[in-house]
Formats: sequence, structure tokens, C-alpha cells
Amino acid sequence: MARKTGRATITSVAEYAGVSRQTVSNFLHTPEMVASETRQRVEEAIAALDYRPHLAARSMRTDRSQAIAVRITSAPEGVSGLALERFTHALCAAARAENYHLIVFVADSDEEEIATYKDLLATLNLDGVVVVATHRYDQRIGWLTERGIPFVAFGRSWSPAPEHSWVDVDGSAGTYAATRHLLDAGHRKIAFFGWDDSAGVGDDRESGWRRALAESPAAEFISLNRADTIENGAAMADQLADEHPDVTAAVCVSDSIAVGAARRNLETGRSLALVGFDDTAAALALGISSVVQPLEEAAGHCFRLLHQQLTDRVGARHQRMLLEPNLNVRS
Amino acid sequence: MARKTGRATITSVAEYAGVSRQTVSNFLHTPEMVASETRQRVEEAIAALDYRPHLAARSMRTDRSQAIAVRITSAPEGVSGLALERFTHALCAAARAENYHLIVFVADSDEEEIATYKDLLATLNLDGVVVVATHRYDQRIGWLTERGIPFVAFGRSWSPAPEHSWVDVDGSAGTYAATRHLLDAGHRKIAFFGWDDSAGVGDDRESGWRRALAESPAAEFISLNRADTIENGAAMADQLADEHPDVTAAVCVSDSIAVGAARRNLETGRSLALVGFDDTAAALALGISSVVQPLEEAAGHCFRLLHQQLTDRVGARHQRMLLEPNLNVRS
Repeated sequence: MARKTGRATITSVAEYAGVSRQTVSNFLHTPEMVASETRQRVEEAIAALDYRPHLAARSMRTDRSQAIAVRITSAPEGVSGLALERFTHALCAAARAENYHLIVFVADSDEEEIATYKDLLATLNLDGVVVVATHRYDQRIGWLTERGIPFVAFGRSWSPAPEHSWVDVDGSAGTYAATRHLLDAGHRKIAFFGWDDSAGVGDDRESGWRRALAESPAAEFISLNRADTIENGAAMADQLADEHPDVTAAVCVSDSIAVGAARRNLETGRSLALVGFDDTAAALALGISSVVQPLEEAAGHCFRLLHQQLTDRVGARHQRMLLEPNLNVRS
Repeated sequence: MARKTGRATITSVAEYAGVSRQTVSNFLHTPEMVASETRQRVEEAIAALDYRPHLAARSMRTDRSQAIAVRITSAPEGVSGLALERFTHALCAAARAENYHLIVFVADSDEEEIATYKDLLATLNLDGVVVVATHRYDQRIGWLTERGIPFVAFGRSWSPAPEHSWVDVDGSAGTYAATRHLLDAGHRKIAFFGWDDSAGVGDDRESGWRRALAESPAAEFISLNRADTIENGAAMADQLADEHPDVTAAVCVSDSIAVGAARRNLETGRSLALVGFDDTAAALALGISSVVQPLEEAAGHCFRLLHQQLTDRVGARHQRMLLEPNLNVRS
């Protein structure tokens, strides 16, 4: 990890790899658009030349703002909408402990978020960014990487991306624990209530349920999927009761879904056992067991990794941390 | 409102009022410590000389950061802990629309918050502040007023304070509407579940229940008070069932309390009618009616009033806005 700091540039990386400067830029920006063979050559060139866009960009800067930025969700509502708030608050506290200020902003798209980065870099001389709610073909990672802006992502990359530091919570481990808990309680037929648009996070959560169930003999994989609302949780509970009356439990991709299903229990006298995800106040109110993300811990690690980049510590780049969630069991 | 901008200083105000400079500072800082007669003289001097600390301080500043700051709660948890988040998010969106950045910070006391103001003013040349969660003997108002830092409070002053702009929600009107709703539904004996430390906001919410009940013949005022937890809501419901079994409804000072009481309904089969406060996801999950604060509207007004101060619009100072809450009725 203690290699000499190189003076590589995008141009020298392009020359080494035998590709155009634009291709290197494409690699940093939209790696999914670069053929995998070309991607490998650029990756090798970056490694060989020890290309560090962070250092290159930082050397041009004259002073520090002691300010970092993070997006907050633009319209927090519903049950799970505010789970990320715990992350933001903990990030704020971690930043404060090192005399950094936290700037929050709202943005409805990657493009809008990048426009905000530009603005914050120009007007407040922002030091770095914590990227939240990563998704497939995330444009932010490439944009920040190419410009050498120090950043850490909360959320792994769900599609090819330039190597970068991230912290994430192992959702699959969470639903695995939830399913094991239900199996241990004697349930044999356990459904999964998931999202209809489940790429990335939703697939990850479903995989833990599938993995735990596969360990049980003669497992049957019943998975229903809809958008993330309380109403849809209720509808899935009704559909399950109609189509699979022998199923006695369901692992839910979110507390919103779990709350909707729990309300149908109350209204109909059914007793479908449920586990939610995110351990929100609504799950607490209804006494539903739920998977707890260690958001405070994640925020602490995000800030620590960013701070390492900002203070040039050895080995600061490209760390990955996957944290284990817990299960909050309620009776 | 279109008076000439004066050049009054703390010294000229002190001379005019015939008091010491320290007394004027005390008035701005800790008005509750200044005898009411003296307070009146200082107020008259400020009015006569058109003393405007905001303008005085601002003229010394050379540039703008386009950044404002607001505190976020340091440990959001439980049911109502995140209600203020809706305010922060809306404030962020309102600021963004005028190209202002929002800096958030955590602080556990007025002293710590003031230290953060100092830091932000020094390092980021902060333009202004939105003060949230005002309380009795709030030190922030005086500190900001004396230094002429543009600010707007979300929350009225619950003890004597220098005149300043604030936006608040009429909690009393909210519990009045809640109690009227229960009366209209045929309930005659309606208790109040309040906070044990109810100075300010808690008293305000109790007063609306009291006012509505007083309009009903032979009203009986049964009020229980404990700290703001779900467990205490459950305990109050049990105490009420024991001591006043004829009471059929309760207006609750918060959703936390209402959720605890609602859970006892589910567990015991009792049917105490409940109305909560803040319309949280937990109230939604349990189907409890709740008073809704217009937090987005409040945030919009806070930013607008602050922006007026920052842009020197006529009549920008010392506006007060008390907004009406709504009742979200659930069956």
C-alpha cells in the first residue's frame, strides 16, 4: 500500500493502455459502456502507473473549507422514508468531531446531484462528498472519480464502476437471519414480500431469504413483489392467504410492506408471522420484528474513510466495508 | 414599515435609555434577567433610534457564502423524533430554490449551538440561521440578536426575548380541533395525556383540549402527565382505565404517547378513542388520528423571512407567523 505517489494523468493512462483519452474518461464515467477487455487494459494501466485522480486534483486546491456534503431524500414520507436520516445525523456527528461541517442538499436525479456538486465546489470549496443511495449505472461515481474529488459511497456499486471506497450493509445477511429466526421458531413455509423494481438492494435482500430457505428440506420459494407501500403490504398478505393458505410467515423487504401485512393480521384475525427491514418506529408501534441496519456505524466508517482521503493517510484509497445487520426480535 | 435606516449602536441605545451598555446587552441576551421597567425603556430606545443590529453587523461583511445553518436533532429515535426532519428537508428545498446551501449540525445545548454558530461564521462566512426547537430562556435568540446575525426562529419565544422574526404552529388549535372531533363523535369524557415537563409546547397543546372541553356542559378535566415514551402512553391508558373507567377518549400530546395507549387497546380489547400529535408513520401504522403540523409550509416561511433579511427587503424584520395545523382523521 506504500507505493510512491505517481504523477500519472488521464493522458498517460490512455497512452499506457493504448486507448484514447476519451476511453479512459468513459471508463471513469460510465464503465458499463466500455468493453470488458478494454476495461481490463485501463484498469491495468491505472494500477501500473498508480494513477490517483484524487491527489492530482487536490494538489490544485489552495485551501480547505472543512465542509463535506451529502444528499438528503427530497420527500421523506411513509414508513421507511426516514431510515436514512439516522445515517445523516450520525455522519453530522462524526464530521463535527473532526471539525468538519456537513452541507445537505436535495436532488431528484444524478444529473441534479452532479450540478449541486459543481455549485458547492465552486461556491464553498467543498472538501468531499458522501454519496448515498447508490444504484445501477450511478453517474455520480464516475463524475467524482474523474475529477479527483474525494468521496466515499454509502452503498456498493450495483453495476461496473471505477474502483472507489464504499461502506454498505449486508442486506442478504439480514434477511438470512430473519428467515433463520422464523425457521427456528418452527415455520416451514416462509414467503418473501419484495419490491417489483428490485434491482440491487431488493435482489440482495431476497437472496438472503432464498439462501436460508434452501438449507431447509423441501423448501418452496414463494415470492410476491410490488411497489413499497403499506397498501401493497396488505394486498400481498391477502394474495398470500388466498393462493397459499399454508404459508405461516413472510420475510418482508421493508417495514412499509411488513406494516401493511401486520395491519391485515389485526383486521382479519390472521396470524402471519412477519419480519420487516429497517426497524422503523412503525415496526416498533406494531411490535413487528425487523432487521436493523447499523447506520450509525456505517456513517462513522464513511466519514473515517473520507477523512483519510482528505488527510493523505497511507492506504486511504479504495476500501470496502460490508457491515452485518442485526435482527430486532419482537414477540 | 419604511422608516429610514438608522445608525444606532448599542452605545447610543444605552445613552437614550439612560442605562449602561451592559444593560442593553443583557436585554438582548437574557431579557428575563432585566427588570420589566428597564426592559420597557430599552425597548423604547430601540424603537426611537430604529436600532437594527442586523444591518450594523451586515455592513461589516465583505461577501456572502449563500449558506444558512440549522440544527438537526442529535439522536433521532422513537416515534416523534423525526418529525422535525420534514421541516429540515423542506427548508433545504426552499433554500435550494434561491441558490442557498444548507449546513446542518448537531448540538446538545444552547452553549454548544452558539459555539457552532461562531465556528460557522468564522470558517464558512455563514449568511444566517434558522433556530429550531425554541424553549424557555433560550440563549440563542439574544446571542444572535446582539451580533446582528440574520435569523428566523421556528418556534415562538416561551419567555421574554428581544423582538425577532418567528414562525410557529398553533398547537393549541390542533388539540382544540382534536377534542372537538371527539366531542362531535359523541364522546363526553375526554382525558388529556400530556408531558410531565410541559413548559411551553406541552402547556400550549393542553390548553386547546381544555378550551374545547370547557365549551361542553359539565366538563371534567382529567389530565395525566409523563415523559414522552410509548411505555408511558401504555401506562397512562392503564391508569385511566383503573381510575376513570367512564372516560372513552384521550387527546395525546404526541404520537409516542398515543401509540403506547393504542397498543394497550390491542392487547386488552379496550376501545379508548385516541388522537395523537405529529402524524408520524407510527400513527399511520396503527390507524390513529393525529394532528398534522404544516412543517413544509413553516419551513417555506422561515426561509422566506430569512431571505428577506438577507436581501434587505422593506419590512423584513420582526414578523411573526402562527400557522394552523390540520387533523388527519383515521377510522
